[in-house]
Amino acid sequence: MNNEFISKLNDIAEQVNLYLDKNVASKDNLQKVVYEAMRYSLLAGGKRIRPVLAIEAAAVFGITAEKVMPFACAIEMIHTYSLIHDDLPAMDNDDFRRGRPSCHKQFDEATAILAGDALLTMAFEIASKGAIEADNVRGGIEAVKHIAYCAGTEGMIGGQIVDLDAETRKISEKELIYLCERKTGALLRVPVMVAAAVAGKENTSEADCLLEYADTVGLAFQIKDDILDVEGDINVLGKPIGSDKQEGKTTFVTLHGIEGSKKILRELTEKAFKACDRMRNFCKTEKQKEACEFLRELAVFLLERNY
Amino acid sequence: MNNEFISKLNDIAEQVNLYLDKNVASKDNLQKVVYEAMRYSLLAGGKRIRPVLAIEAAAVFGITAEKVMPFACAIEMIHTYSLIHDDLPAMDNDDFRRGRPSCHKQFDEATAILAGDALLTMAFEIASKGAIEADNVRGGIEAVKHIAYCAGTEGMIGGQIVDLDAETRKISEKELIYLCERKTGALLRVPVMVAAAVAGKENTSEADCLLEYADTVGLAFQIKDDILDVEGDINVLGKPIGSDKQEGKTTFVTLHGIEGSKKILRELTEKAFKACDRMRNFCKTEKQKEACEFLRELAVFLLERNY
Repeated sequence: MNNEFISKLNDIAEQVNLYLDKNVASKDNLQKVVYEAMRYSLLAGGKRIRPVLAIEAAAVFGITAEKVMPFACAIEMIHTYSLIHDDLPAMDNDDFRRGRPSCHKQFDEATAILAGDALLTMAFEIASKGAIEADNVRGGIEAVKHIAYCAGTEGMIGGQIVDLDAETRKISEKELIYLCERKTGALLRVPVMVAAAVAGKENTSEADCLLEYADTVGLAFQIKDDILDVEGDINVLGKPIGSDKQEGKTTFVTLHGIEGSKKILRELTEKAFKACDRMRNFCKTEKQKEACEFLRELAVFLLERNY
Repeated sequence: MNNEFISKLNDIAEQVNLYLDKNVASKDNLQKVVYEAMRYSLLAGGKRIRPVLAIEAAAVFGITAEKVMPFACAIEMIHTYSLIHDDLPAMDNDDFRRGRPSCHKQFDEATAILAGDALLTMAFEIASKGAIEADNVRGGIEAVKHIAYCAGTEGMIGGQIVDLDAETRKISEKELIYLCERKTGALLRVPVMVAAAVAGKENTSEADCLLEYADTVGLAFQIKDDILDVEGDINVLGKPIGSDKQEGKTTFVTLHGIEGSKKILRELTEKAFKACDRMRNFCKTEKQKEACEFLRELAVFLLERNY
């Protein structure tokens, strides 16, 4: 990978980590364990892809990272809560996450349920504060609404429900795509939606290009996950390999094989590149063009990642 | 009880039920089970005390029920999600709620976890839409922020965490009050906060009176629950009696006995009456005065309830 890209990716992740560390601070009160559990899972690393997408989409729209940061971090908090609840015994029953005990193993189930609930709730506290302090209050509150929609029954939670159902029967490719668009796609699309809302660029041609980019990368992201579940290295991935097969799940690999899935992945990356090229036509400043270039490299990074 | 009061209480509850039924509608898609589970718990009856408080507080501030309805119903949805998660095996492990199987018994644990998450998420979708459509957008978004704060780690979830800890050791009266102010108090206080925000009456003397009323009624509510856990009728209450004692929990009854707790309850109701009397001095129209009278009767209703 391009070193300049990696260095910028790390810089943005660092900004995000600082914001999260400051805004999801520990408190020394009777309920301090909930803050510890939230921070345990939230500050455990992670690629911060969703906030990075929001920040770079904002740059394409010509606004600063600062203006989308509360919304970007709210999305990351929601992503984290979903992992905590997903790992619970009643759900995927995963004891490890990012190479460490999952939240309910490190604490206990009740604390993990409440820490997840608390991250989801605080995401909306941070996002609504962000809206109040925004130059564009209406755009800010639209961003809050988009986050709730994409995290909810027609977005991420809807996808999780379909995923539970998919564990009990073979599903069609159409159903698998429906599942992915919601379970992982919605939270990769919403960073662009919040950036467009805050920038006052909703329903523009630029926004359409960025949404197509995000949807394409979102689907590619899931296919890559399916491939890594077969080919990945447990030490790099930080979670067990082969769990999909063990559970008899329908994935892109079971439908298209490894090589077929890799081919689809390359095609989707090409499609993401084309969306980037169209986006570039709308860019006027150097900063906007750089953000476009960064998003192009991000698609490659996600294609080539091994964790 | 005063029949006119009961009839008005039922009318408001009916308005709330209609709003919830319409806005948390079933959808016939692949994830329809999550809508069924949400509606199973949300539309299972319940006194709708929190929305009633928001609507009557709004009337005292001189604004219509319609203007606070999205926020009032968001609070009720959050109350419902907290009951679903509270009933889970890893939490209170209650198989019954309102005389029916609890959500995880009727469906399964994974669906109950996700239905709870979905109600919490959709609460913020409905509230943020409410803010966008409000005459007073800034007041609306302040209301969203208050809901997130009061439902979160310094509010309801904080109280639940302290409650888990309280099951493992004897706690002091000071700690018990800290717990109650958060676990049940925060969601009874926030209806007044959202009404004040939407009405543009935050930090006024009227708002102070109403907040004192809500805090007093909130504490009384918990003490009444503790008494009902000893003296209640399982058939009326719809849940088992004596569970606090069985779990060795510190309650107002274990600290002050039944008679002592009833005395505190009467004193708190007197305090709520006085807050109503002060509130009445700010009321100009008949409608405002009626709302004041209604809140006074509500305090009596909550004192005398047997479920």
